[in-house]
Amino acid sequence: MATEREILAAISAIFSRSSDESVLVGIGDDAAVIKAALTPIALASDMAVEGTHFSRNWSSLYEIGAKITAANLADIFAMGGRPEYLLVSAALPKSITVEEAEELALGIADEAALVGASVVGGDLASSEKIVISISAFGAVGRPILRSGAKVGDQVVVSKLPGESAAGLEYLKRGVLDSSSAHHRHPTVDYQSAQAISAIAHSMIDVSDGLVSELSHIASASSVGITIDRELLASSSDYADLARVAADLGVDVWQWVLHGGEDHIFLATIPRETSIPKGFMVIGDVIEGSRVTVDGFVAEHEGFSHF
Amino acid sequence: MATEREILAAISAIFSRSSDESVLVGIGDDAAVIKAALTPIALASDMAVEGTHFSRNWSSLYEIGAKITAANLADIFAMGGRPEYLLVSAALPKSITVEEAEELALGIADEAALVGASVVGGDLASSEKIVISISAFGAVGRPILRSGAKVGDQVVVSKLPGESAAGLEYLKRGVLDSSSAHHRHPTVDYQSAQAISAIAHSMIDVSDGLVSELSHIASASSVGITIDRELLASSSDYADLARVAADLGVDVWQWVLHGGEDHIFLATIPRETSIPKGFMVIGDVIEGSRVTVDGFVAEHEGFSHF
Repeated sequence: MATEREILAAISAIFSRSSDESVLVGIGDDAAVIKAALTPIALASDMAVEGTHFSRNWSSLYEIGAKITAANLADIFAMGGRPEYLLVSAALPKSITVEEAEELALGIADEAALVGASVVGGDLASSEKIVISISAFGAVGRPILRSGAKVGDQVVVSKLPGESAAGLEYLKRGVLDSSSAHHRHPTVDYQSAQAISAIAHSMIDVSDGLVSELSHIASASSVGITIDRELLASSSDYADLARVAADLGVDVWQWVLHGGEDHIFLATIPRETSIPKGFMVIGDVIEGSRVTVDGFVAEHEGFSHF
Repeated sequence: MATEREILAAISAIFSRSSDESVLVGIGDDAAVIKAALTPIALASDMAVEGTHFSRNWSSLYEIGAKITAANLADIFAMGGRPEYLLVSAALPKSITVEEAEELALGIADEAALVGASVVGGDLASSEKIVISISAFGAVGRPILRSGAKVGDQVVVSKLPGESAAGLEYLKRGVLDSSSAHHRHPTVDYQSAQAISAIAHSMIDVSDGLVSELSHIASASSVGITIDRELLASSSDYADLARVAADLGVDVWQWVLHGGEDHIFLATIPRETSIPKGFMVIGDVIEGSRVTVDGFVAEHEGFSHF
């Protein structure tokens, strides 16, 4: 059984690999210290609990670490910001080995490295079930809020949602191969968030399902939103997803409209702007207060972790 | 049973009571946004797990919230900083009521208000056992590190440690009255940390026990530290603590030297400076690498949460 000191040393070594001159004090003191930022700073936290958000039967510790990190990084990008520093706190079972702790830390460090962010501190505790909490901090030039959507905006997404939900369906049926890869470790297109940041009126990442996130924007912006299934179905990913859904006997629209954890970026942009590469238009911002799909009021069936 | 939406609304209302013009975006979007700082920023996280760090049989949810917050705030003060913004993530059982969630949030908000800090965001998850993770974020003019102790420094503490350990001993014996108040909700003298910040060469808060923290300073600063029990016993709190220890049949020095969670501030300061009000000298920084108590090498018997 590993001691706290051994686990800490192993994790700290992994997190200290990325060197960043703006980190004045890194892991090992009471707090980390970073240089002052010249722009506003975005802060966001995400917590993942074993048995609620993930299962060690389904996902490797590397995947678990990478996935919670991706969710947290996506929050900062969805604000128009760029995550720079992470604090990682983890409650781990006493039975965890140094190698397992390293695998978890590597998943976190590798995902953070994709966007140039580094882990500067955190805390370690013991618990029967694994709980991971990550806080991300980063500069944001112009915050892009949920409340910024304007009547007349086009609604765009960086990708067709639903692949994570499809993966979850495979896992529930005991299929543990690569067909659930998108659920176990979603590939988040962070660049797309940066590409749309310059022009977006509002932005959010799809963590709880497309309709649920659209409702957040509609409510915060006091607008209606109408989306069109035909536009979503024009995605090059749709045919594959629809085939998988048919094979499993599932309604593909349940996945596309209500599937969580894809961390696709959803934005509203002015009508006159050209659509950034990779994004597709799926609907419009209109007067009103409701989210409609093909003209019908959409149910709030968001994916919940509570 | 409360829904996530109800819990979130109740908690958000409590955390939004403190208004701060530097918070550009508060709770409710993907991330919070704060104005840029002009000085370096200190960041620290603390995690508390039910059954490891606290018990609902022993502490109210208010006390549990206040205590984890105090530990987190103390980390920033021990760095010479001033906490300004907190992110609070909590995994709560599905059985929790809105009133219970409010009690927890109030404990956090009240402790934060003591130092003018506000909760700007966080996350909510479900879990069988309560897990709370807090990240604090605040300006630090001159970071005061564990590694700054210099040979010839005086070692000072803001208070005699041991009251939390004494309280824990009462709780273990089933005494649930005010005699355990210091353990359930330590009163942290944040002002003392600010008072010593201007002159301290090194500083740390006593979370894992005095000798354990002295060892951290000695190791990080490559110095030896010698402390004197007679100096500790000259504290006005000593007589009461010694009497309680005698009543319970416990060695009072176990509490003073190794008791955790008091969050007293421990610093080393240049010999020629006058001692700030409230602090007492307990020893000296010397050549070497060991921590000695009355000339004997002290054992590392730090309080561990792992």
